[in-house]
Amino acid sequence: MIVITSNQTPQEQVNEIIAVIEKEGLQVHLSRGADHTVIGLVGGVTPKLAEHLRQMKGVENVVKISKSYKLASRDFHPEDTVIDIRGVKIGGENLVIMGGPCAVESPEQIDEIARLVKASGGQVLRGGAFKPRTGPYSFQGVGVEGLTMMAEAGKRHGLLTITEVMTPEYVDICAEHADILQVGTRNMQNFDLLRKLGTCGRPVLLKRGFSATYDELLNAAEYILAGGNRDVMLCERGIRTFETYTRNTLDLSAIPVLQNLSHLPVISDPSHGTGRRELVEPMAKASVAAGANGLIIEMHTDPDNSMTGDGVQSLFPEQFDKLLRDLEKLAPLVGRRFSNSLEAAPAL
Amino acid sequence: MIVITSNQTPQEQVNEIIAVIEKEGLQVHLSRGADHTVIGLVGGVTPKLAEHLRQMKGVENVVKISKSYKLASRDFHPEDTVIDIRGVKIGGENLVIMGGPCAVESPEQIDEIARLVKASGGQVLRGGAFKPRTGPYSFQGVGVEGLTMMAEAGKRHGLLTITEVMTPEYVDICAEHADILQVGTRNMQNFDLLRKLGTCGRPVLLKRGFSATYDELLNAAEYILAGGNRDVMLCERGIRTFETYTRNTLDLSAIPVLQNLSHLPVISDPSHGTGRRELVEPMAKASVAAGANGLIIEMHTDPDNSMTGDGVQSLFPEQFDKLLRDLEKLAPLVGRRFSNSLEAAPAL
Amino acid sequence: MIVITSNQTPQEQVNEIIAVIEKEGLQVHLSRGADHTVIGLVGGVTPKLAEHLRQMKGVENVVKISKSYKLASRDFHPEDTVIDIRGVKIGGENLVIMGGPCAVESPEQIDEIARLVKASGGQVLRGGAFKPRTGPYSFQGVGVEGLTMMAEAGKRHGLLTITEVMTPEYVDICAEHADILQVGTRNMQNFDLLRKLGTCGRPVLLKRGFSATYDELLNAAEYILAGGNRDVMLCERGIRTFETYTRNTLDLSAIPVLQNLSHLPVISDPSHGTGRRELVEPMAKASVAAGANGLIIEMHTDPDNSMTGDGVQSLFPEQFDKLLRDLEKLAPLVGRRFSNSLEAAPAL
Amino acid sequence: MIVITSNQTPQEQVNEIIAVIEKEGLQVHLSRGADHTVIGLVGGVTPKLAEHLRQMKGVENVVKISKSYKLASRDFHPEDTVIDIRGVKIGGENLVIMGGPCAVESPEQIDEIARLVKASGGQVLRGGAFKPRTGPYSFQGVGVEGLTMMAEAGKRHGLLTITEVMTPEYVDICAEHADILQVGTRNMQNFDLLRKLGTCGRPVLLKRGFSATYDELLNAAEYILAGGNRDVMLCERGIRTFETYTRNTLDLSAIPVLQNLSHLPVISDPSHGTGRRELVEPMAKASVAAGANGLIIEMHTDPDNSMTGDGVQSLFPEQFDKLLRDLEKLAPLVGRRFSNSLEAAPAL
Repeated sequence: MIVITSNQTPQEQVNEIIAVIEKEGLQVHLSRGADHTVIGLVGGVTPKLAEHLRQMKGVENVVKISKSYKLASRDFHPEDTVIDIRGVKIGGENLVIMGGPCAVESPEQIDEIARLVKASGGQVLRGGAFKPRTGPYSFQGVGVEGLTMMAEAGKRHGLLTITEVMTPEYVDICAEHADILQVGTRNMQNFDLLRKLGTCGRPVLLKRGFSATYDELLNAAEYILAGGNRDVMLCERGIRTFETYTRNTLDLSAIPVLQNLSHLPVISDPSHGTGRRELVEPMAKASVAAGANGLIIEMHTDPDNSMTGDGVQSLFPEQFDKLLRDLEKLAPLVGRRFSNSLEAAPAL
Repeated sequence: MIVITSNQTPQEQVNEIIAVIEKEGLQVHLSRGADHTVIGLVGGVTPKLAEHLRQMKGVENVVKISKSYKLASRDFHPEDTVIDIRGVKIGGENLVIMGGPCAVESPEQIDEIARLVKASGGQVLRGGAFKPRTGPYSFQGVGVEGLTMMAEAGKRHGLLTITEVMTPEYVDICAEHADILQVGTRNMQNFDLLRKLGTCGRPVLLKRGFSATYDELLNAAEYILAGGNRDVMLCERGIRTFETYTRNTLDLSAIPVLQNLSHLPVISDPSHGTGRRELVEPMAKASVAAGANGLIIEMHTDPDNSMTGDGVQSLFPEQFDKLLRDLEKLAPLVGRRFSNSLEAAPAL
Repeated sequence: MIVITSNQTPQEQVNEIIAVIEKEGLQVHLSRGADHTVIGLVGGVTPKLAEHLRQMKGVENVVKISKSYKLASRDFHPEDTVIDIRGVKIGGENLVIMGGPCAVESPEQIDEIARLVKASGGQVLRGGAFKPRTGPYSFQGVGVEGLTMMAEAGKRHGLLTITEVMTPEYVDICAEHADILQVGTRNMQNFDLLRKLGTCGRPVLLKRGFSATYDELLNAAEYILAGGNRDVMLCERGIRTFETYTRNTLDLSAIPVLQNLSHLPVISDPSHGTGRRELVEPMAKASVAAGANGLIIEMHTDPDNSMTGDGVQSLFPEQFDKLLRDLEKLAPLVGRRFSNSLEAAPAL
Repeated sequence: MIVITSNQTPQEQVNEIIAVIEKEGLQVHLSRGADHTVIGLVGGVTPKLAEHLRQMKGVENVVKISKSYKLASRDFHPEDTVIDIRGVKIGGENLVIMGGPCAVESPEQIDEIARLVKASGGQVLRGGAFKPRTGPYSFQGVGVEGLTMMAEAGKRHGLLTITEVMTPEYVDICAEHADILQVGTRNMQNFDLLRKLGTCGRPVLLKRGFSATYDELLNAAEYILAGGNRDVMLCERGIRTFETYTRNTLDLSAIPVLQNLSHLPVISDPSHGTGRRELVEPMAKASVAAGANGLIIEMHTDPDNSMTGDGVQSLFPEQFDKLLRDLEKLAPLVGRRFSNSLEAAPAL
């Protein structure tokens, strides 16, 4: 870390800054310029020390050189993390496909969609039992029952399942029924939820907050990793910009950037990332071309009648199938291959 | 609500749309243009119907005319809401001043700051016991003990208290110790938390998400109101933009806009809204000039050594005092007067 | 167009609005709801009428149904525009590659880079003679001389050339020396420049303003088209967001969206769109996978010593070559093939 | 300036970096940390050297400590710039009021509005002869004739005049007729225009680009100042954010920030900054409370029939008058007083 002071800072203040640093057992390298004095710190800087220095009198700027997250960083863990869930591998050169409806609506609906996801070559069934909705009068999901409906559909068709958990209280029951727990964009900095997920015993897909920086996303992942759970996937799902034609702006640069900064798998969500069905196919292909480790895509057998209104961004089954066929050709050109299927899909 | 279909939509699809509307008992007004047909709906449109229509084939656009929130709307409740907490009035022509440190650090710290807030004419003591922090290795607050430290300081000096609650599990204990519960910017759409606050029995200050629209903020308030709690204050605390010189961009237009759309009091937070001490004074004055019903301001007796690093945006006590003196003169020019003090401040 | 009035608008005001519409020879369709009256306009609405209506008393909202641009719209021109410049086709299924340095620096520099662009299979040489720079003390380009240096390099190696023009005064001289004129992101709404380009006799590549909506970009293109110049390419080059790790956020959704709304070719600029060399390759591939009609990429033989400081986003020649090899394989999977070369590249 | 290299940078690369710095006659201060080596530069760093260093191999980051603009900086010119135009003072403790229509429409219109601006206590008449419009089919202003209409109205009523100039070609004729030339938000980085204004002999009001940083605005001002024109005013007129309820988000923090960084007067435009008439009054007051040196406000005698459609943000004359009465009371509380009137307003 570097602390910059102005040339108008009196010497006693500079000395005070230095004293604070040395009290923590760190070394100081001083560099005097024409207008500024630069104080370099050598050794491990605690967040508290950094905060203290930033607000001391005479300090103009504090420049972090090292990152604030550690377990999520590629410096700390140079190899790609590959998560293995009963034989389905996520990360590295594997391309995982998660598909399904926005919300679980009925046993028949989720079963039929699971059948189609499996038939097209997907590995994971997505579906929400608890739905975060902007207003209190919108459909809020079918609740706990939805978890069992989805678990059964997954089992029957040999698919892993992923579902969103919105509050610490429901982590245990979701972990009981689903293979992967998802943190939604509005909860990326719900720190109590993240802490609870650190000990939930299930892999977590962490969606980027719709206005979160890469650094904030990796710090949120650090909360889960620091709790002991090393199976975290990062998910780019679109950011909020001034453009209103699309629901969000899918930031595909996030894929190579996060893969450079971190070892964790990066999944792309072109459905929420665009909010428009006709854009899902091109943006899914672009995601894979940019190096994504997987896709999470909304598909519905009757999107015009979906209960959440997200049908406008859901693919029809035949579009989903066609997309996966195209991706099988595209993936090898960028060093990806479809993840293998669930081991020993149990008969029912 | 208005549904717009293209001129290329076949008649049977238009009929299907009309059938869906009429099935819900609503009337239809049809208006055919050169390129589009416009279908007007008369009667109460449920969110589910709106969602269904948006995703039907042939529908180009659905334009909401009425608002999605109701209890928060000024149409529903034309008079200003004035919240009365033991004689301290918030809303209407009253200007409430909330002051205190970012975090409660010790009984001595919070007691001394409470004394100063009271002496300068503030009515509410702010202070965090639980702190939301970007990374897991930063200071997370002193926890439950902080609640009692702050409650005692408030009692001793005749101040109301406000503190942030981050998760549903802690609502009850916070409500036991604090007069007002605060929802932070990262939790504005933590819907389980909002629902719990709807029945907590305490007034709530709801901070705008740092990338939330006015509409989303009012819908979040609607969650709390719909639970039965009518004592909600809205708080503008800065939004995230491309500018990095300030920590956030304080959006003062939010004040008159929210007051037009809603009857709820609007509080401004120039401390988080700018992140820089030297900007707090001008932006506090600007907030009042724009019509704010109150201010929440960070003040610290030793900001250089604050535990959260937010000292850089905390006023020194003498600055806080000077600001309040200036505001006493400014307030009457825009139809505001300082809120009265706590009734019968109990002796200790 | 639709005009919405509140239920509190007196009848005489509604009548006045209707009178204004009918005076323009348009028909009115009236639709009365519980809370609002909706006035539909049938016929061609002039911008002036729209503006007038928007500000009349009693008008709550005016909803445009038709687009404000016409010549740029796919409704008006359903087939893809394919621009043919001496045999090099841009648009439709052709993928055009434009490569070269940020700035022309010397005859030797631009000649050597032209040779490499050609050898790798590019069709267009890019290079700036006039450089838009944030501050007045930065290198501003070599000026007019650069135009002739680039023209000669293009001729010698059988490449088309593209260069940026910043002000109406220089359009003629740029058009004399370059095959394609480029409008930079800061000039997308330099309307005098756009008007001048409408009659310049050269194809124009119009870069999206870094905070411009799709609608504004298409309206800017409309200025050029309306002047009589139908050879316009749209260019996505990154938008400004809150993220600071990348220089801009490349919005790849722009590619399919603009291709849906318009018939004009869409070119992607992953160099400025990311500002980091290591992101150019993945984002170039993602651009093609999303359906781009071409790429404009910075390449430099000695990026560490480039005069503009944009070397950090320039590919080395071997990276550029490798990328084009990869794109040759990727393009056919998304219905694209490399544009053919310049006809009869003249010997010097 | 500081150059940061990683601990994995080989020594010969570090030496190369140092050699480059020393070749320019600057001294180097080296500071070795655990993970990074920090190279401090002592002396005047040219932009070209900075750019060169940024892109050298082994360089991780370059941190500017000094600002890139100089003439615009308060470090360079500690006292407030006060521009004196025939006795009307702009800057310092003076509060200047500029009012008038969006566009000049006719001699009668501009004359009547000038009369009202003067009667209410304004000093400057605003009005556009050339209008920047998103699409080519919208009203583009009455052109050169508008300049003489406005000049005459200003003369008759003893007001200075301000008008927008959009392209270098028109600077001379605008300078002939108007007292102040305005650069619009879309032209803030029209560098040829800025350069021309550097020698135009008239004070310039430079509007902030709707997505420009403070630093970019000050660098744009530097272009004009560097040309020899020291009479530059900065204008905050709203930035583009995700919020669509207001036309722009007026960033009032810009006022104290720009006044801290620079000595130039800062004017606020609450009309374009909000785009809604009902927000102009509160945001005008907030601007003054935040310390603005002046306001530029749209006022129209018949806003419902204004030719540009900007009538929705224009005050009625009685609102304008009432606002100025209120501001006369507010200004002294924040150290401002109304600018004096034009000296010796000539009779006609």
